[in-house]
Amino acid sequence: MAVTLAELARRVHGTVRGQQATAIERVAPLAGAGPQDIAFLADRKYQKLLAETRAGAVILRESDIGDYAGNAIVVVNPHLAFAQIAAILHPTPASVASIHASALVVSGAQVSPTASVGPLAVIDEGAMLGERVQVGTGCYVGRGAVLGAGTRLVANVYIADGCVVGRNCLLHPGAVVGADGFGFAKDGERWHKVPQLGRAVLGDAVEVGANTTIDRGALADTVIGSGVKLDNLIHVAHNVRIGDNTAIAAQVGIAGSTTIGQRCTVGGQAGIVDHLTIVDDVHITAGTLVTSSIDKPGVYSASLKAQPVEAWRRNAARLHHLDELARRVQALEAALEKKTKEKQA
Amino acid sequence: MAVTLAELARRVHGTVRGQQATAIERVAPLAGAGPQDIAFLADRKYQKLLAETRAGAVILRESDIGDYAGNAIVVVNPHLAFAQIAAILHPTPASVASIHASALVVSGAQVSPTASVGPLAVIDEGAMLGERVQVGTGCYVGRGAVLGAGTRLVANVYIADGCVVGRNCLLHPGAVVGADGFGFAKDGERWHKVPQLGRAVLGDAVEVGANTTIDRGALADTVIGSGVKLDNLIHVAHNVRIGDNTAIAAQVGIAGSTTIGQRCTVGGQAGIVDHLTIVDDVHITAGTLVTSSIDKPGVYSASLKAQPVEAWRRNAARLHHLDELARRVQALEAALEKKTKEKQA
Amino acid sequence: MAVTLAELARRVHGTVRGQQATAIERVAPLAGAGPQDIAFLADRKYQKLLAETRAGAVILRESDIGDYAGNAIVVVNPHLAFAQIAAILHPTPASVASIHASALVVSGAQVSPTASVGPLAVIDEGAMLGERVQVGTGCYVGRGAVLGAGTRLVANVYIADGCVVGRNCLLHPGAVVGADGFGFAKDGERWHKVPQLGRAVLGDAVEVGANTTIDRGALADTVIGSGVKLDNLIHVAHNVRIGDNTAIAAQVGIAGSTTIGQRCTVGGQAGIVDHLTIVDDVHITAGTLVTSSIDKPGVYSASLKAQPVEAWRRNAARLHHLDELARRVQALEAALEKKTKEKQA
Repeated sequence: MAVTLAELARRVHGTVRGQQATAIERVAPLAGAGPQDIAFLADRKYQKLLAETRAGAVILRESDIGDYAGNAIVVVNPHLAFAQIAAILHPTPASVASIHASALVVSGAQVSPTASVGPLAVIDEGAMLGERVQVGTGCYVGRGAVLGAGTRLVANVYIADGCVVGRNCLLHPGAVVGADGFGFAKDGERWHKVPQLGRAVLGDAVEVGANTTIDRGALADTVIGSGVKLDNLIHVAHNVRIGDNTAIAAQVGIAGSTTIGQRCTVGGQAGIVDHLTIVDDVHITAGTLVTSSIDKPGVYSASLKAQPVEAWRRNAARLHHLDELARRVQALEAALEKKTKEKQA
Repeated sequence: MAVTLAELARRVHGTVRGQQATAIERVAPLAGAGPQDIAFLADRKYQKLLAETRAGAVILRESDIGDYAGNAIVVVNPHLAFAQIAAILHPTPASVASIHASALVVSGAQVSPTASVGPLAVIDEGAMLGERVQVGTGCYVGRGAVLGAGTRLVANVYIADGCVVGRNCLLHPGAVVGADGFGFAKDGERWHKVPQLGRAVLGDAVEVGANTTIDRGALADTVIGSGVKLDNLIHVAHNVRIGDNTAIAAQVGIAGSTTIGQRCTVGGQAGIVDHLTIVDDVHITAGTLVTSSIDKPGVYSASLKAQPVEAWRRNAARLHHLDELARRVQALEAALEKKTKEKQA
Repeated sequence: MAVTLAELARRVHGTVRGQQATAIERVAPLAGAGPQDIAFLADRKYQKLLAETRAGAVILRESDIGDYAGNAIVVVNPHLAFAQIAAILHPTPASVASIHASALVVSGAQVSPTASVGPLAVIDEGAMLGERVQVGTGCYVGRGAVLGAGTRLVANVYIADGCVVGRNCLLHPGAVVGADGFGFAKDGERWHKVPQLGRAVLGDAVEVGANTTIDRGALADTVIGSGVKLDNLIHVAHNVRIGDNTAIAAQVGIAGSTTIGQRCTVGGQAGIVDHLTIVDDVHITAGTLVTSSIDKPGVYSASLKAQPVEAWRRNAARLHHLDELARRVQALEAALEKKTKEKQA
C-alpha cells in the first residue's frame, strides 16, 4: 500500500519538508531504506546514517535536521510517529468475523457477531467475547471469562474461569491468565493447598508477552492496570496489583500481594518480593532484586557487572569477608586516633 | 453452599466460640468479610482488622483472641483450617467422567472409566489414566505415560512419552514434563545431541505451576518427590532429584544432576547449579545463586538489595576493586604495626 | 536392538579392546550397567566406577584404560562416541509421513509428501514444510512460515507468520518463535505499540528448549545461527543475533538488538542487556548480568555465592556502604603518610 508523504504527515500531525507527493510503501531502518521507504531518526547520534540514507523520507525532530536535505516528516516525537506510520503502512490483516468449524463454543457462551474464533479454540460455558474480539488457534477461554472489545488472543493462550481481560488487549502465545496462585498452608511436614478463589483482572490496552503467567488471586483479585505492557516469561503472582501504564521487561518475577504503582518500568530479570508497595514512577534496573518497599520515585538498582572471571573471583571472595574487612578498617581508625592522641598528650 | 459454624469446626478439629448455628457461605479476607463470610487471622499483627471485621466468624488461635467477641473457630493452625474450610465452601466443580468427542484417545491407551478427557486432548498409545484422572483441554499424554488416580492436568499440559505422574497431582497450563534434557557432546566446534533416554517421574500430590518445565533424565530419571510444590516458570533440568515436601517458588532454575533434600524451600528466581547436593531442611532466599553443595540445614542467601541507583553505582564500582581495597587495608595494618614496633624499639 | 561391539566401534571410528562379537543392547551409566549394556567413562575421576562396573563394554580414552580389563571401545572423544552409540541403540521411532485426520492444513500450504503433521496441528496459508519435517500435536505453523528438511516441532510449538526454521532443527513443547518484540513508543503517559515487522530466522541444527521464546524483529530480523542450542525458558528479544554453535542454558535472557558471537556459552539465568556486542568464544557464568559489550574472548562472571544468611546479611549490609568504606581507607592512607612525613621532617 503506497501513501503520500503529505497524507502520512497529516495522520501524525507532522509537517512535510520536501516533496509532498512522494509515495511511501514501507518503513525501513535508515541504513537499509530505499526510495519507497520511510525511516526515522531515533537519536541525534545516528546523524551519520541520516547523511547516507537513501530513504524516500525520514521522520525526525526539527532540531535534528542539520544538513539533511531529503524529504522529511518533522514531528515532536519521531518514535511515536514512526509507530503510527508503521501501523498505517503495514496494517494487521483484518480478521473475518467467524467461528472456525473446528472451534468449540460451548452453549451459553456469548460471542459477539463481530468476533472471530480460530481453529481448535475452546470458548467455555458463560464466557463473553466482546465486539471484534479475536481468539486465535488453540486458545482456551474459561467459564464465565470476559474478553473486552477489540482484544486479541494470538494463539495457545489460556484464560481461566471467571477472569476478565479488558478492551484492546493483546495476549501472545502461551500466556496463562488465572492459573492458581502458589498458596499452601503447612500441615506438619506437608503442604496443604489453599484454594485460590480470586480472579485475574486485566484493564484495557494491556499487552501480555509469550509464556507469561498471571496468577489468579487467593481471595481478592490480581489486578493489572490499563496500558500495562508485560514482556515474555514474566511471573505475576496472586494478588499483585500493577498500576496503569507500567512496563515490565522479560523474565521479571513479582511475588504475591505486591503493589506496583503507575508509570513504573522494571528491567529484565528483576525480581520484587512479596507484600511490598512500590510507588508511582519507580524504575528498577535489569537484574535487580527489590526486597523492601519503595516510597520515593526514582531509579533503583542492585545489579552487578560482569568482569573477567579471575578478577571477579578475587573480588567476590573478599565480599564474603567484607564485614570482617570493615571491622579491620574500624580498628585501624581507632589505632591511628589513639596514636594521634598519645602524641598530642 | 451454606454450612454451620459447628459443622465447619468439626471438620477442622476446632472449637466454636459463639453461635454454633451461624450459617457460613464463603471465605473472605478480614477486611471485606460480611455476616455470611468466614475469615482468618493469619498473624497477631492484624489484630486491628480483627477488631473491625464484620465477618460472620473468624478462624484463629486461642492466644490471638484478645478482645474479639464475635463468632470464632479456634484452632492450632488457622491457615490450615482456613484452607480446609475454603475447600469445603468452594468445592472444585465435579468433573464428569467422560471423553470429549473432540479428544483423541489412541487405541491401546487405558483410560479409567472414572477419568475425564477434555476437548482436543490427546492420549497417545499405551498411556494409562488412573481413576478420577482429569485431563483438560488441549493436553497431550505421551506414549506409555502414566497418570495416577486423582491427578488433574488443567489445560495445554504436555507429558512426554514414558513419563510418570503420581496420584492427586495438579499440573497447571503450559507445564511441560519430560522434554529432552540439555545434553550435547562437543564435536569440534559443533554440539552433538546426546539422546535423552531417562524419564521424568513425579510422586504423589505434586503441584506444577504454569509453564514450568521438568526435563526427562539423560540415562537415569529425573525424580520429583511426593508433596513437592513447584510454582510457575521453574526449570528442572535432567537428572535432578527433589525430596518430598520441598516447595520452590517461581522462576527458580535447577541445573542438571543436582539433588535437593526434603522439606526445603527455594525463593523465587534462585538458581542452583549442576551436580550439587543440598541436604534436607535447607532454605534458599529469593534471587540467590547456589554454586556449592550444602551439607547443613539452615537459611542461605546471596541476594543484594536495591538501592537508589547513584548510591548503588558508587558501591558496585568499589566492589569491582574490592580485592585491591582489601590489600590496601592489609598494607595499612602492616605499616601501623611496623610503626608501633619502631616506637617500642 | 542388539549390535556387536565391532559394529559399534566401526560406526564411531573407535577400536575394540576385548570381544569383538559382544552383543550390546542399551546404553547405561557405569554404576548400573549389565552385560548387555555399554557405558562410558566421562572423566578419569570415575576410575573407581570403572573398576566395579558390570557393563558389557565401556567407551573410553586410551589414556584412561588403566587396570580395566573388560571390553572397551577406545576413542578420542568418549562423550561424543557415547552420544552416537546411544542414537544407534535407541533410535527415535520413525515418523510415518502422513497428515493426521484432525490436523488442519490450510489450502495453499505446501507440505512435502515425506513430512508428517500430527493431531490437531494447524499449517496455515502458504506455509512450507520440507522433506521429512515432523509437526507434532497441537503445533501452529503460521502463514508463509518455512520449516527446513528434517526439522521437528515436538508439540504445542508456535511458529509465527513468515518465520523461518532451517534444516534438522528440534523445537520442544511450548516454544514460541516469532511473537512480537517488546517495542513501544512513549505517548505522554501511555505506551504506543511499535509494529513488529521483522522475522525470526533460525539456521540449521538449532535446538530450542521447552517454553523458550524467540521474538520476531522490529524491522530487521532476529537471527539464530546454525548449530545454536537453546535450553528451556530462554528469552531472545527482537533483533538479537546469535552466532553459530553458541549454547545457552535455561532461563537466560537476551535483550533487544544484542549480538552474540560464535561458539559462546551462557550459563543458566544469566542476562545480557540490550544493544551489546559479545565477540566469539565468550563464556558467561550462570547468573551473571552482562551490561557492557565484551570485545575479548574469555570467561566473564558477576555471580555471588550463597552463604549462611547471618554471615551474608552482615556482608551485604557493608556492601551498601562500600563506597564510604573505601573513602575511609583512603583517609587512613593519607593520615599515615602524613604521620610518616612529619616524622621524617
